[in-house]
Amino acid sequence: MNLQDKIAQIEPIDQSAVERSWRRWDSIAKPLRSLGLLEQAVTRIAGMRREPEVTIEKPCVVAMCADNGVVDEGVTQTSRDVTAVVTKNFTTGATSVCSMARVAGIPVVPVDIGVACDIEADGLIRKKIAYGTQNMAQGPAMTRDQAVAAIEVGIDITLDLARQGYDLFATGEMGIGNTTTSSAMAAVLLHRSVSEVTGRGAGLTSEGVRHKIAVIRRAIAVNQPDPDDPLDVLAKVGGFDIAGLVGVYLGGALAHRPVLIDGFISSVAALCAVRLCPAAAGYLLPSHVSDEPAGALVLEELGLKPFLTCGMCLGEGTGAVAAIPILRMACAVYNDMSTFAEVEIEEYKHLK
Amino acid sequence: MNLQDKIAQIEPIDQSAVERSWRRWDSIAKPLRSLGLLEQAVTRIAGMRREPEVTIEKPCVVAMCADNGVVDEGVTQTSRDVTAVVTKNFTTGATSVCSMARVAGIPVVPVDIGVACDIEADGLIRKKIAYGTQNMAQGPAMTRDQAVAAIEVGIDITLDLARQGYDLFATGEMGIGNTTTSSAMAAVLLHRSVSEVTGRGAGLTSEGVRHKIAVIRRAIAVNQPDPDDPLDVLAKVGGFDIAGLVGVYLGGALAHRPVLIDGFISSVAALCAVRLCPAAAGYLLPSHVSDEPAGALVLEELGLKPFLTCGMCLGEGTGAVAAIPILRMACAVYNDMSTFAEVEIEEYKHLK
Repeated sequence: MNLQDKIAQIEPIDQSAVERSWRRWDSIAKPLRSLGLLEQAVTRIAGMRREPEVTIEKPCVVAMCADNGVVDEGVTQTSRDVTAVVTKNFTTGATSVCSMARVAGIPVVPVDIGVACDIEADGLIRKKIAYGTQNMAQGPAMTRDQAVAAIEVGIDITLDLARQGYDLFATGEMGIGNTTTSSAMAAVLLHRSVSEVTGRGAGLTSEGVRHKIAVIRRAIAVNQPDPDDPLDVLAKVGGFDIAGLVGVYLGGALAHRPVLIDGFISSVAALCAVRLCPAAAGYLLPSHVSDEPAGALVLEELGLKPFLTCGMCLGEGTGAVAAIPILRMACAVYNDMSTFAEVEIEEYKHLK
Repeated sequence: MNLQDKIAQIEPIDQSAVERSWRRWDSIAKPLRSLGLLEQAVTRIAGMRREPEVTIEKPCVVAMCADNGVVDEGVTQTSRDVTAVVTKNFTTGATSVCSMARVAGIPVVPVDIGVACDIEADGLIRKKIAYGTQNMAQGPAMTRDQAVAAIEVGIDITLDLARQGYDLFATGEMGIGNTTTSSAMAAVLLHRSVSEVTGRGAGLTSEGVRHKIAVIRRAIAVNQPDPDDPLDVLAKVGGFDIAGLVGVYLGGALAHRPVLIDGFISSVAALCAVRLCPAAAGYLLPSHVSDEPAGALVLEELGLKPFLTCGMCLGEGTGAVAAIPILRMACAVYNDMSTFAEVEIEEYKHLK
């Protein structure tokens, strides 16, 4: 089955399950709607699953790792080698997101979807499309076929994890240079100026940011990505990590399971997935808002409000994984709490 | 030792430990300051503990339960009996915050500091100051001596929990009518108009809110609390639950342990504690921002930015407990992650 056929299979979430879930919330012995956005998130998961029963028993983080040719332009503070070092560290649990995930007993699944060297490590899913992308400042980062192949990697991995019982996917990534590709994609997909959507990434000086903006402008001028063709934008100024995450969002939607957006890079992938398949929007959940300047803009375009506003900008899936315990806590109230009828308290009334 | 002597013992947090903690963060192999406010929270805990080692091994929620005489004025949607029902439910784990706390293995410690009836239940700390406060719309809610006694209950319970090894205290409360008392205190302590700081509580109609505002205005007019005397404000227009929480904040400060602010009611207690003892401000940590209109105003006055912005307004400590796993995740990165030196990656540089 080709990508278009898979996309055509994605159905909108089930509104009747959403409504049944709201009725359950409103029967629970606590002030109406007093868990705010968390109640809404639970009802949306009910809609994804097509039943008002909502639990998060077996979540995981899927971390797409890849290199970006545009690093040759000097757009990052760190060297390209760091991608491979951190990718390998994912397999030994020695990354920030792994430390955080361990606290909540959540596995992290790293995927080599395009790291620039071969990595020997147990626990790494090897689905390398190429040894990094081409330098987008000089031509397309990848071919359209490579973009499709990378998306399909994400879909297949997510469907496979869903078959193994994983019921919520947090998105993560590692790829030196991927705020540069994300800013390029955001500028095109949001019709914004490059300077509005470009930030310091993992630690650029003001001069570094000015150079990064110039490089992104050049990449867009050289490639002329078509804003109405998300696959064209992804192929020309994106990355394999972002493409893989597009696939995770689409795979989650196919599996009727929620996918948690992490920060800026992950949200750009979510936007690309929704432009490819508007029905996939129903399966997205926000987590935090990145400190990267375009993080809030992309979430707003997706119509999502973040749960966390800690000023995080680490990437790797750290924001997404931080939201999982909170969602589990909301599920606990949803599933364990007595109803007004059970505790013989008069029900709260909806406001006029 | 009287309350003034205890307050005089509270020392500011240790800035040298804060600085050593920042140096540790900056040595960790991840982009500088990329966990945002969470890094700051860890460094502040280091300052409280006077050492750069920070863990959260044994947190708990302290839930102060009490009735408010002002409920006689019809300022709530639910009847006063609900305070006793929910207080008892705390002891069986059948409240929203208990459900959420269980997810993270965190005990909830309920305290009857002024419920209007006797409650027979194992696991309830009984420190009743009186069977509810007086109706503040007709006179002082409590005497100054009662306010002091309720604060001392909070201090003593917190110091006792600290001796048992609890190392972080999340504040919680239950008391029908306590958004009314909190709004009254906030109006006086913040020099704001009553309408600015008064919201729907657990579910008032617009007409209900107008009546609540009128009752609060009357309480302030009748009692003339002195904004420069926080104990006077607490006694005249506060509640035993709020007074008990003031004691939890002061007790945390005395024990050199962090106290997590929950929502609006809890933040008003924090503000009162800081007005009584400015050095106690160092031991406060924010969690979420309540959907009650004055929640953000009080946090701003305290100079704190929330981690969570989910639009929660349930009370009981639900927002505070939701922040604990995130703080634990930050501690995991702080404690488990390699340094740049260890992984042989070049250190990130501070921005110019």
